[in-house]
Amino acid sequence: MWKGLKPGSHLPFGAAYPYKLDMVETEEFGNMLFLDGMVMTSQKDEFVYHEMVAHPVLNTHPNPENVLVVGGGDGGVIREIMKHEKVKKATLVDIDGKVIEYSKKYLPEIAGELDNPRVEVKVDDGFMHIVKSKNLYDVIMVDSTEPVGPAAPLFERGFYQGIYEALKEDGMFVAQTDNPWFKADLIRKVNKDIKEIFPVAKAYYANIPTYPSGMWIFQIGSKKYDPEAVDVNSIPERETKYYTPRLHHASFILPKFVEDLVK
Amino acid sequence: MWKGLKPGSHLPFGAAYPYKLDMVETEEFGNMLFLDGMVMTSQKDEFVYHEMVAHPVLNTHPNPENVLVVGGGDGGVIREIMKHEKVKKATLVDIDGKVIEYSKKYLPEIAGELDNPRVEVKVDDGFMHIVKSKNLYDVIMVDSTEPVGPAAPLFERGFYQGIYEALKEDGMFVAQTDNPWFKADLIRKVNKDIKEIFPVAKAYYANIPTYPSGMWIFQIGSKKYDPEAVDVNSIPERETKYYTPRLHHASFILPKFVEDLVK
Repeated sequence: MWKGLKPGSHLPFGAAYPYKLDMVETEEFGNMLFLDGMVMTSQKDEFVYHEMVAHPVLNTHPNPENVLVVGGGDGGVIREIMKHEKVKKATLVDIDGKVIEYSKKYLPEIAGELDNPRVEVKVDDGFMHIVKSKNLYDVIMVDSTEPVGPAAPLFERGFYQGIYEALKEDGMFVAQTDNPWFKADLIRKVNKDIKEIFPVAKAYYANIPTYPSGMWIFQIGSKKYDPEAVDVNSIPERETKYYTPRLHHASFILPKFVEDLVK
Repeated sequence: MWKGLKPGSHLPFGAAYPYKLDMVETEEFGNMLFLDGMVMTSQKDEFVYHEMVAHPVLNTHPNPENVLVVGGGDGGVIREIMKHEKVKKATLVDIDGKVIEYSKKYLPEIAGELDNPRVEVKVDDGFMHIVKSKNLYDVIMVDSTEPVGPAAPLFERGFYQGIYEALKEDGMFVAQTDNPWFKADLIRKVNKDIKEIFPVAKAYYANIPTYPSGMWIFQIGSKKYDPEAVDVNSIPERETKYYTPRLHHASFILPKFVEDLVK
C-alpha cells in the first residue's frame, strides 16, 4: 500500500527540484521509504547502511562526544550512534520534517531513538547549518540522498571545506557517496576534494541490496585519526547485524576497480 | 536485440526442467546471457564472478596442475584459470553445448580462452563426470546455475562427497552458492555438508550487480590447504579488475549476518 505525499515542494526552504516522498509496503523488503523515486531505506536491509555510516568513524575517533548527522531523518544512523556511550550529544539536521514524521509512523524500529534525550532533532538546511558551525563537532555524518535535487550541494567541494571548519581540530567526517558501477566519476571527484582538504582520506564499502548495483561507497575525511590504524581488539562488540570489529579493516580493502577510483 | 533459443529441452541429456537460454543486448550491461530467466553473465560485470571463482583457490593450492570446471560454459572462469602458469590442464564439463556456442559468438572476450591448448571442453553431465572421477583433480570449480532445474543435483550432499573423491589427497574445491539475503538456508546447508566432508570449510563473498541482492557467496571445501592461511605477499599481481592479493583475506571476512550462516 502506498502512503505517499503528492509530488511538489512541501519543503520549508522551497527546493526547486520536484521533491517527492513515498512510503511503500513491499512483500520482500517490508516498508520502504523513497525520496524523489530513489530508495532511501527498507525494513529488511536498512541495518547495513545505518551501521556502516555510524560505526567505522565512531570506532576510530577516541572521544566522539559531539556528533552531527546531516540528513538521515529516518533516524537509522541516530539509532546506531546511540549504541556508543561516549557520544554525549547527537544533533540531526534534516531539511525535510516529513521524512522524520513518516519514519516515526511507518518505520518505528528505525526511527525509535530520535526521541532519545541525547538527541536533538532540527528541521533545517544542513548546508547552512554546516556553514554556521565552527570548531564544534567531533564527528559529522552526511546521510543524504543522491547528488540530485536538494542534496546536490552536499557533494560540492565547498561543503567539504565547511565540514572541515565545523569540525574540532581532531574531527572527522563520513559521507555516503553512491556506487562505483554507475557513479565512478562522483567517487573520484569526492576523493580528490577530500584529499585536498583533509590530511586523511579513506573509502570503504558495504553491500546494500536495495541500492543501485548493491555496492555502496562511504568516504571519510579526517584531521587526525586514521580508520585503518585502529586497533580492532579495542572495539567492543555491539549489537549489530552487518558491522563487526573484524569487518572494520576488511571494509576498507576495495576491489581493484574501486581502489583505482580513490588512489 | 534478443538472440535466444525457444524454451524447451535442447539438452542432450533431456533435462526435465523447461530449460531456456537467452542472449540479450542491453544498454547498461552489454550482452547478457540468461539461463532459465536467471542472469548468468553480462559483459559489464562478468569479471567479478569469474575472477572470484578462480583466483582465491588457485592462489591457495600450491600446485594446481589439473583443474576441473563443472558448468561455466561461457568460458569466463577458464579465462581466469589460464592466467595461472602452474595449471597444466583445465577441463570444462558443461551439460549445455549451446551455452558454449552462444558465448563464443556473442561474448568473445569471455569465451576466448576456451580454445587455449591447455583447455579441454566436454559437453557432458558434470554430476556424472564427478561420479566417474577418482583421485584426479587438484582443484574443482563448480560454476553452475542456481539450484533449480539441471543444476539442482550440484547442491546436494552426495555431489560434494563425489567431489571429495574426485580430488587428489590435497585437493580443494569452490562452488558459487547464491546470496545470503534470499537463500540463507541454502548457504547454511552447503556449509554443513562441506564441514561434514572436508577438514577445511570456508566462505567468501563478492559484489555482483547483476545477481540477486548484489552479494554473492562462494564456499570452499579443502582437504589440506586453508585459503585464510595464505601468505598474500607470495601471490603475484595478475591482470584483474576485482580480485587483488590484498582483497584475498578481506573477502573471507563476512558481514555479521553472513558469518552467522556459516559458523
